[in-house]
Amino acid sequence: MKRTSEYAAIAEAEIRAISLPKENLEGLYAPVEYGMQAGGKRLRPTLVLMTADAFGQNPEKALKPAVGIEMFHNFTLLHDDVMDKSALRRGRPTVHSKWDENTAILSGDTMLTLATEYVADVDDSILRPVLDTFNRQALRVYEGQRLDMDFESREEVGLEEYIEMIKAKTGALLGGAAKIGALIGGASKEDAERMYDFGVMLGVAFQIEDDYLDTFGNAETFGKPIGGDINNNKMTFLMVKALSMGGANAEALKVAMKMPEGPTKVKTVTRIYEAMGMPAISKAEAAAYSSKALTAIKKTSLSDEAREAYRKLIEKLIGRSK
Amino acid sequence: MKRTSEYAAIAEAEIRAISLPKENLEGLYAPVEYGMQAGGKRLRPTLVLMTADAFGQNPEKALKPAVGIEMFHNFTLLHDDVMDKSALRRGRPTVHSKWDENTAILSGDTMLTLATEYVADVDDSILRPVLDTFNRQALRVYEGQRLDMDFESREEVGLEEYIEMIKAKTGALLGGAAKIGALIGGASKEDAERMYDFGVMLGVAFQIEDDYLDTFGNAETFGKPIGGDINNNKMTFLMVKALSMGGANAEALKVAMKMPEGPTKVKTVTRIYEAMGMPAISKAEAAAYSSKALTAIKKTSLSDEAREAYRKLIEKLIGRSK
Repeated sequence: MKRTSEYAAIAEAEIRAISLPKENLEGLYAPVEYGMQAGGKRLRPTLVLMTADAFGQNPEKALKPAVGIEMFHNFTLLHDDVMDKSALRRGRPTVHSKWDENTAILSGDTMLTLATEYVADVDDSILRPVLDTFNRQALRVYEGQRLDMDFESREEVGLEEYIEMIKAKTGALLGGAAKIGALIGGASKEDAERMYDFGVMLGVAFQIEDDYLDTFGNAETFGKPIGGDINNNKMTFLMVKALSMGGANAEALKVAMKMPEGPTKVKTVTRIYEAMGMPAISKAEAAAYSSKALTAIKKTSLSDEAREAYRKLIEKLIGRSK
Repeated sequence: MKRTSEYAAIAEAEIRAISLPKENLEGLYAPVEYGMQAGGKRLRPTLVLMTADAFGQNPEKALKPAVGIEMFHNFTLLHDDVMDKSALRRGRPTVHSKWDENTAILSGDTMLTLATEYVADVDDSILRPVLDTFNRQALRVYEGQRLDMDFESREEVGLEEYIEMIKAKTGALLGGAAKIGALIGGASKEDAERMYDFGVMLGVAFQIEDDYLDTFGNAETFGKPIGGDINNNKMTFLMVKALSMGGANAEALKVAMKMPEGPTKVKTVTRIYEAMGMPAISKAEAAAYSSKALTAIKKTSLSDEAREAYRKLIEKLIGRSK
């Protein structure tokens, strides 16, 4: 097994090498390449590569599907940015602000089809389960996005349905990445399912940590301004959990949500969260899902070395700015 | 072989029976079903079913892929309508006007993944070529749409590049439908390729006829108001060909394109087209591509009965409002 940073570097190199037909189709394919070159942790292709390796396959055999999974992820970001009317992502103009909305829609569609082609670049013997896994996770991601959009117009969201939304929107793609890596690695059907479960639980832990960092993180290491979720009244784990606890603090939160955007609102909500013990509660919840992810790994036939690699990955992700 | 209307009826029944999970996901899947129930000729699934039948396979075996091809088509219409900001399609509100733009983008994405699942519902032995054909035609369709969008901002478009655009935007999906039907029917690789060529040529003939009808058709049988393309200064076969002929009439056309929308503009452009002999030129061009489509059929190993069925289909489509 390699270090996760090595798998990420292999994926990054392959992504940088993508070259699409540009002659008279610049307006279709340049945004695809731009969307892919946004950088980031490359967590999803890392999961594909390391899981193929963990099950004994040369990770080179998983390279195209790894790129496909990352392309699917970037396709969802591209369309999400149109829907959210976001001008920036990771400090760069989004595709629809650099080009225009129609370009973002069409080049996003192109990315989804290209992603399917990349993912399908596997041995014929496993094409069916790999393709099914990919399509099923895609539908789960859309379902999660739909639920997330529906939550925006609601005053209250239950903790259970929030977790279900995260399992779909964030977990399914991590689950799909791990399962596809396992299938390429020659894992048994049972082990492939366990790797899917691992990815879903990792996704939930990851999202809870991300929600935490958006309020309690350090802007520099987090890479985004702190307090964005609070200003947007976003239904995050912190907000959903805090509201579900009820009492005077929950009522105070509801009042604070009606405040205009700005540092006073961010400070007010943050203080209420602190009074409710949300930092510790959030950390404990992320740890609980990390532990579920590790339990899924322990149920597989993977070697101790591989298990240790996944444990380190979790530690790196969930404890990523302690 | 059945009549084309019978294949269309079989596809229609299967489409009407589509039932997607609605519980708390109404906002994702109801627009998908709505988009599929727009009616129309069901030409693309008809091509899948009749081609599987023509090569000796029970068309029932092609039913899911036929639905998948129609779902892909309706996905492109849904996103095209967002890009064109069209309020109506076939007399009904478009998805983004009935719901909203974000719903149209997300449910369109969902249709593309569902379409891939439907198309992949074939025997494992042909999954690879069917999936490759589907993904390749999809990319051609996006490329055609991109070129069409680029043409909008240009003053002149060459006849050759216009035909290339149509081959991609309209032809590739008809070609893909026929080729996938052939693969399901057990056709040889060569015959499957010829059926692809047939579909592409049929698509070009069909589009030229459609452009003709938008100016010279009968509003009632055409189903849309006449003159829409003229009012929108759309680069159609009529316009591209007429401009390419040059001379005083072409100059007059350029002036007429600057007129404001309305019946006077439509009448003026129509008269110039008539003076240039465009109705006959357009009919001859559509006939030439119909003939190329038939030539592709004649190169296959298909029976005389099957060839006759395709001849009738072409006649029905290209002569459809004589």
